[in-house]
Amino acid sequence: MDECGPYSRRSLLPWLVGGSQVLGLCAVVLTGVWMGRYRGGFAWDGSAQEFNMHPLCMVLGLVFLQGDAILVYRVFRNESKRNVKLLHGIIHLLALIITIVGMVAVFDFHRASKIPDMYSLHSWCGMATLVLFCAQWVLGLMFFLFPVASAWLRATYLPLHVFCGALLLVMAIGSSLLGITEKLLFSIMATYSHLPPEGTLANILGVVLVCFGILIISIITKEEYRRPPNPEEEALSVHFKTLTEGASSPTP
Amino acid sequence: MDECGPYSRRSLLPWLVGGSQVLGLCAVVLTGVWMGRYRGGFAWDGSAQEFNMHPLCMVLGLVFLQGDAILVYRVFRNESKRNVKLLHGIIHLLALIITIVGMVAVFDFHRASKIPDMYSLHSWCGMATLVLFCAQWVLGLMFFLFPVASAWLRATYLPLHVFCGALLLVMAIGSSLLGITEKLLFSIMATYSHLPPEGTLANILGVVLVCFGILIISIITKEEYRRPPNPEEEALSVHFKTLTEGASSPTP
Repeated sequence: MDECGPYSRRSLLPWLVGGSQVLGLCAVVLTGVWMGRYRGGFAWDGSAQEFNMHPLCMVLGLVFLQGDAILVYRVFRNESKRNVKLLHGIIHLLALIITIVGMVAVFDFHRASKIPDMYSLHSWCGMATLVLFCAQWVLGLMFFLFPVASAWLRATYLPLHVFCGALLLVMAIGSSLLGITEKLLFSIMATYSHLPPEGTLANILGVVLVCFGILIISIITKEEYRRPPNPEEEALSVHFKTLTEGASSPTP
Repeated sequence: MDECGPYSRRSLLPWLVGGSQVLGLCAVVLTGVWMGRYRGGFAWDGSAQEFNMHPLCMVLGLVFLQGDAILVYRVFRNESKRNVKLLHGIIHLLALIITIVGMVAVFDFHRASKIPDMYSLHSWCGMATLVLFCAQWVLGLMFFLFPVASAWLRATYLPLHVFCGALLLVMAIGSSLLGITEKLLFSIMATYSHLPPEGTLANILGVVLVCFGILIISIITKEEYRRPPNPEEEALSVHFKTLTEGASSPTP
């Protein structure tokens, strides 16, 4: 559907992006309140309070910031592509650093409490998400920010990069929901079935994360919100392609 | 990328579909083995054995059959569209019936064991998935199998139907992973961290479900596996559109 259609959705974009930001911030705040109000707050000393850094960092880095890094291609549709790419990479780098802090927190807590690592489905899914996230960031950097790959290889890799970006967000949200369920059953199994305030808050956090994911994926999969083709950039891209292919790969 | 590209993926379709079927069947078998071998088998008497019908029905109906119902549009790309639509609707109906049996099983078990319903994040996500699944099936039937809606309304609803189909599969798999984690923590919390055979099997089931979902979504989102346009069907569709719009909605 183009913008001339009877019910063009283009004007909805700011509302959808605004809605996603409200949901993403809500998720971060709810995680902070859950850990701060019901689980004893935060510390960095191998205690349960260090563990509490884990959900907060994961929801902030791997979900909220990753979602926002994906969104920049829709929000800044009319800005210079190179700047948008840089912003996409920088937000992802920030997300990666926060995510690694969150991972260190949980491994530290496990070591101090003599709890085995990597046995649960949550840990398997979470670790797969982190490994894929790192691979995606390194490959994205090499392929799209530094011209290491030929233009043909970049064009071939782009759909996979986009698919894996959306997959990573879904995997991060899925892993978060598994973590919420695990934490609730470890902490309040005896009372969870009566839905105490902590259980209700954590369930709502899960629902907010799901809604955040649905909103981000629906924005990025809508054809009418994609970056419009820019003839100047196309010309530059072809020029660059000719140059790089001429220099490094004469027969693509 | 079209089929003339240097690395056309069209020939991969049978392998990808075959792989998805192997993964889907593996998931059903693993669920059956988990419930049959480690959780006491199946029954329909309000006992824990009746509960065991729940994961089996959900993995079979809401995940495997739903995935296959989505796939028919890619597998039967060159068959009559009406027949493919019918098959899509029939597999979904079968999935819906099996899913409802699975829901009855868990509510029956809860009533017999005096366990409250609908308190966990798993139950919230699962119920949201079932409600959306029912709405999607009824709307799909009205819009696409019976010509209740105008051609313009059908064309407008189609992208939403496709998006919600993929979303439903992801939600079904996410809810299943939450259910696996819940069941493991309710049953083997004390030993889960040492990864006993039951824990390993259930974790692998979760990974197989994730891989099944990734494969199905990657098949249906690849442009080159879409149904090729059929001039005869296009002509019929335009004819039908003119007829229905002329009869029911003169000013779309």
